Amino acid sequence: MPAEAGGPTVTRIGVIGTGVMGADHARLLTEAVSGARVGGVFDVDGGRARGVAAASGGARVFADPYALIVDDGIDAVLIASSDATHEDYVLACVAAGKPVLCEKPLAPTVEACSRIVEAETEHGSRLITVGFMRRFDPGYTGMRALLTAGEIGAPLLMHNVHRNPAAVPGLPGSALITNSAVHELDIVRWLFGEEIVEVAVHTPRPSGQAGGTRDPQLLVLTTESGVLADVEIFANARYGYEVRCELVGETGTVTVDAPPPTSLRRGGLHARALPGDWRPRFAEAYRLELQDWIDGAAGGASAWDGFAATFVAHACVAALTSGDRHAVDLPPVPALYRR
Amino acid sequence: MPAEAGGPTVTRIGVIGTGVMGADHARLLTEAVSGARVGGVFDVDGGRARGVAAASGGARVFADPYALIVDDGIDAVLIASSDATHEDYVLACVAAGKPVLCEKPLAPTVEACSRIVEAETEHGSRLITVGFMRRFDPGYTGMRALLTAGEIGAPLLMHNVHRNPAAVPGLPGSALITNSAVHELDIVRWLFGEEIVEVAVHTPRPSGQAGGTRDPQLLVLTTESGVLADVEIFANARYGYEVRCELVGETGTVTVDAPPPTSLRRGGLHARALPGDWRPRFAEAYRLELQDWIDGAAGGASAWDGFAATFVAHACVAALTSGDRHAVDLPPVPALYRR
Amino acid sequence: MPAEAGGPTVTRIGVIGTGVMGADHARLLTEAVSGARVGGVFDVDGGRARGVAAASGGARVFADPYALIVDDGIDAVLIASSDATHEDYVLACVAAGKPVLCEKPLAPTVEACSRIVEAETEHGSRLITVGFMRRFDPGYTGMRALLTAGEIGAPLLMHNVHRNPAAVPGLPGSALITNSAVHELDIVRWLFGEEIVEVAVHTPRPSGQAGGTRDPQLLVLTTESGVLADVEIFANARYGYEVRCELVGETGTVTVDAPPPTSLRRGGLHARALPGDWRPRFAEAYRLELQDWIDGAAGGASAWDGFAATFVAHACVAALTSGDRHAVDLPPVPALYRR
Amino acid sequence: MPAEAGGPTVTRIGVIGTGVMGADHARLLTEAVSGARVGGVFDVDGGRARGVAAASGGARVFADPYALIVDDGIDAVLIASSDATHEDYVLACVAAGKPVLCEKPLAPTVEACSRIVEAETEHGSRLITVGFMRRFDPGYTGMRALLTAGEIGAPLLMHNVHRNPAAVPGLPGSALITNSAVHELDIVRWLFGEEIVEVAVHTPRPSGQAGGTRDPQLLVLTTESGVLADVEIFANARYGYEVRCELVGETGTVTVDAPPPTSLRRGGLHARALPGDWRPRFAEAYRLELQDWIDGAAGGASAWDGFAATFVAHACVAALTSGDRHAVDLPPVPALYRR
Repeated sequence: MPAEAGGPTVTRIGVIGTGVMGADHARLLTEAVSGARVGGVFDVDGGRARGVAAASGGARVFADPYALIVDDGIDAVLIASSDATHEDYVLACVAAGKPVLCEKPLAPTVEACSRIVEAETEHGSRLITVGFMRRFDPGYTGMRALLTAGEIGAPLLMHNVHRNPAAVPGLPGSALITNSAVHELDIVRWLFGEEIVEVAVHTPRPSGQAGGTRDPQLLVLTTESGVLADVEIFANARYGYEVRCELVGETGTVTVDAPPPTSLRRGGLHARALPGDWRPRFAEAYRLELQDWIDGAAGGASAWDGFAATFVAHACVAALTSGDRHAVDLPPVPALYRR
Repeated sequence: MPAEAGGPTVTRIGVIGTGVMGADHARLLTEAVSGARVGGVFDVDGGRARGVAAASGGARVFADPYALIVDDGIDAVLIASSDATHEDYVLACVAAGKPVLCEKPLAPTVEACSRIVEAETEHGSRLITVGFMRRFDPGYTGMRALLTAGEIGAPLLMHNVHRNPAAVPGLPGSALITNSAVHELDIVRWLFGEEIVEVAVHTPRPSGQAGGTRDPQLLVLTTESGVLADVEIFANARYGYEVRCELVGETGTVTVDAPPPTSLRRGGLHARALPGDWRPRFAEAYRLELQDWIDGAAGGASAWDGFAATFVAHACVAALTSGDRHAVDLPPVPALYRR
Repeated sequence: MPAEAGGPTVTRIGVIGTGVMGADHARLLTEAVSGARVGGVFDVDGGRARGVAAASGGARVFADPYALIVDDGIDAVLIASSDATHEDYVLACVAAGKPVLCEKPLAPTVEACSRIVEAETEHGSRLITVGFMRRFDPGYTGMRALLTAGEIGAPLLMHNVHRNPAAVPGLPGSALITNSAVHELDIVRWLFGEEIVEVAVHTPRPSGQAGGTRDPQLLVLTTESGVLADVEIFANARYGYEVRCELVGETGTVTVDAPPPTSLRRGGLHARALPGDWRPRFAEAYRLELQDWIDGAAGGASAWDGFAATFVAHACVAALTSGDRHAVDLPPVPALYRR
Repeated sequence: MPAEAGGPTVTRIGVIGTGVMGADHARLLTEAVSGARVGGVFDVDGGRARGVAAASGGARVFADPYALIVDDGIDAVLIASSDATHEDYVLACVAAGKPVLCEKPLAPTVEACSRIVEAETEHGSRLITVGFMRRFDPGYTGMRALLTAGEIGAPLLMHNVHRNPAAVPGLPGSALITNSAVHELDIVRWLFGEEIVEVAVHTPRPSGQAGGTRDPQLLVLTTESGVLADVEIFANARYGYEVRCELVGETGTVTVDAPPPTSLRRGGLHARALPGDWRPRFAEAYRLELQDWIDGAAGGASAWDGFAATFVAHACVAALTSGDRHAVDLPPVPALYRR
């Protein structure tokens, strides 16, 4: 199709980290998001970066991520590199005054997250978005709309299931919380608009398929107003990827299960296929998250949300270790993040 | 239809207690069970007893339950009177050497259950069946068959939901455990063929619809081999009656939800109706339970099962009160009950 | 369990034909129906008859079906022998003045059905029930209750699916109508309480799995008031047995699909098992049909219903052959069968 | 978010007709499609055009649709005006050599469609896409993928349901075919990659809710290879909007029903909401259709597909009138459209 050069403004995104997540984001920015394009790419693996740059309509490849961040041809930055590198890149974006979308977790430690929040607070306006994409998933937004509309009365309980088919053997049990359950920690905070104040973790005997990991686990979270949310996190569930939840209110419940549009009758079964991993399950959430970010609509998680999720996750890790209930004493919310 | 008198042997059942449950049992014995009939009826409300006797093909009405138990025209006894009366009637049946099906709970206290177990042990053979009808529900038996067949691998977790639309205002929170969750306590023991060794109870803020009762609650049970089972018990769920569970194994899961055979599209919804209470949900389980009992097939719960369910329930009540995990130290199983 | 001899009246059933259906009926009468027992058994295969008699608590084995029918120890007769034998046995039951439950079809030809109706009309009271067990299936009775309650408005359309995994190779296409679709013909008449007045049959290319049979077929039926019902009949559907329908009214629809109480997550699928044949699907319908018959509740199909189903089936066979719409000109309903 | 001017090529779309469909397309082009923007707008209602232009980032408003079509600032044209105007606008686009996406139907008459095909054939390359958006619906594409992968064997039957809550009173019965069922006519051709060669239409008595329209209808279509597809088209179904189908193959079936990601338990029901009209049901299909068109990926329906759909629709209208089966004698496919 013939097309002009020029036209409306297009935001040029610099992508740092072009593994599975980064490459997927670059593809969406190029093919499925309005008003954006990939302007630059950095990856520790230069070949991988060049491949993604080529697939993104000829984006520039940077040898230095900090050069990418400050480059005049880059309007905003998407960070999908390894967790340990998030802090430095995010801080550089803040220093450069550039909007940044950082994949979850914001940073692996509470201290690192805290430094990021401080930097943004000092900067004085919000530049950081954390990639908790479930906030854009039609299932979760539908659930929140039903709750807000009063369709199930005041919330009391929430049951969450989060299963992956397989994890790396030898993964520490804490990683199930900090890498996976962190999504539910964010969703609970977002859904109820309040903080988690107490956590406990129960564990069955570990699965023989879990390669020594303390897997599965059952988290029990209590919010400020007394809503109780349990989370089954199971990293080696084998049968497929599945994220489901049921929210129980005083007069009804909402379930998010996101069945696919087709079902199959074959071989004695009537079946719906389950996704193999999180990407097909949350494809629409990622697209909407990026569009929202490009549009500047601010529907995403803030640096404070990223800090709080990591803070609660570490309380859960402590509860996993001790077997006891742990109080979660979050510091007060800085003014920048108050609604 | 013309019919002979005489023919095959028919077991004559004496029904003690003809409230909702007792009247339902009498109806099933009369209309839907092979080889049985109601031979005698007792109720503290004589008019109610006479009504059920008339509906049962002219059964005799007894003014004294103990006279019913020892009567030569009564082959076996079904107890559906108030919980507090169970012990005396069951002990009288044992003394008379008559088979007895006692509605759950076997008795309200651990001590009373213990006395029943002792009496039967002294008697030396099994006469007592406890009415945990879920053991005959096609959903639960189907789940156990799939587990046993290895379809989901070794069990790890079980999530249970048990909701009633409404409870009596002012009901103590402990009654949710001893009256309702006791079904799940029995099912967990039956399904895994092992004892519950630790319990904890978490509670959200109570529902504003619960009239002051600590409702809902989340029980967390651990079995001998380390299977973790959680149970949401919600006595004032308003929207309907619902019993569901998902059993999670190392390679798959089984869900019991028992959808009705019809669904309705109307008014913007595609819906399946939920039952109003437990009777339609477990109608088939009750019929199969009674047929199994009449056939002497011994598929039902024993006095020991009744004792153990009450024992674990009281540990859960203690955990509800303390907020801590409680160990469950069941005494050893008497030889009479070993498989 | 100890039991008396004597007690209430028990109807003694003579079972003619102890193949799959007859043996199943005998088992239900012995084990799951109140007030009945198998009194006598006949089969052309004497060994098969003896086996069923033994499993039925020691019923007598008859060498002559007509001797069984007139025997004083037989109160009523159940016919599950081959279709071609139905007429003679049913007529003998009428001559003997004995109630008879005849498996569908009442007889293979319109003429034979007509002779049976005439014989019963001359007898002057109803003795014959035809085994259209779907009239007792909780799915179909639930659908009818919703229709009658006005939940979907006046009926307009009905879509039916009737699939078997495999049929005998070389089966004539007409047999799909007379053996299988005849169930839907009866259900349409029963559900709407009116006759089918026009039929048409459409056929795709036959399945390569159908061994030369004209399979599947699509029947299109019109009732007196103008309701349109289509029926997919597919005898070699391979994947399992399935009977489903959707009834479309002016303001909503009811679907009967009868999902099993459990679902399985395994190997990338969330699935419910489909039955292998009609027996598990309609187990409850058969039990309720027999109980209704034993109770003399007259909920079953009459000889006229059996005649009408065969009459319409033959009109469908003619439509299959011609490819045109065919009017169905049923004779007037004899007074004996008017409601 | 700060953004550059310039950057990658952006296709400037002229939108003709800004009613419900045109406004929705303009919104998607502006907010959710990569590489496009609305460059110009025409509507017979100038105020409506100005509103959509403003919401599209300040697109130009044209007073003359033909001026829009030939304008140098318009790269491609989207036609969503009334059906009767399609032919003139599409022919003008072909004359101007501009790509055009025309909402279905391509034109209301076979003759008009034929003139369009001829014009494009003379032009010598394909410029026209017809807006049969279901070809992009994840349900339908998923079904086709399963069919192509051999998951259900060779196709035999397809059952389609297409229901709208309400239509304009007095709508002629033929409009149900030409406006609504035309989607299924296209899907059948697309799915099986072959033509429909015979059609028949059955009708029940009309719904009392249909204001005199012959509604609902049951179309029965036969394809070249003998696949049989039935289509229930019901324009006044009242309860909601619903599009569903089941494709039956020799060894299994695929169902497209597209359940929403949430379900609600409330008021005695477990329910999923049905959409109120086609827009939420096919939102993703419309977005993907537009992205495919902008990308020049040619996944959409051709002018020939538009011609064939109208041709078959008119054969169905004839069959509705006559009550007989009608052969569909499509002319040969011009070389331009052969695969």
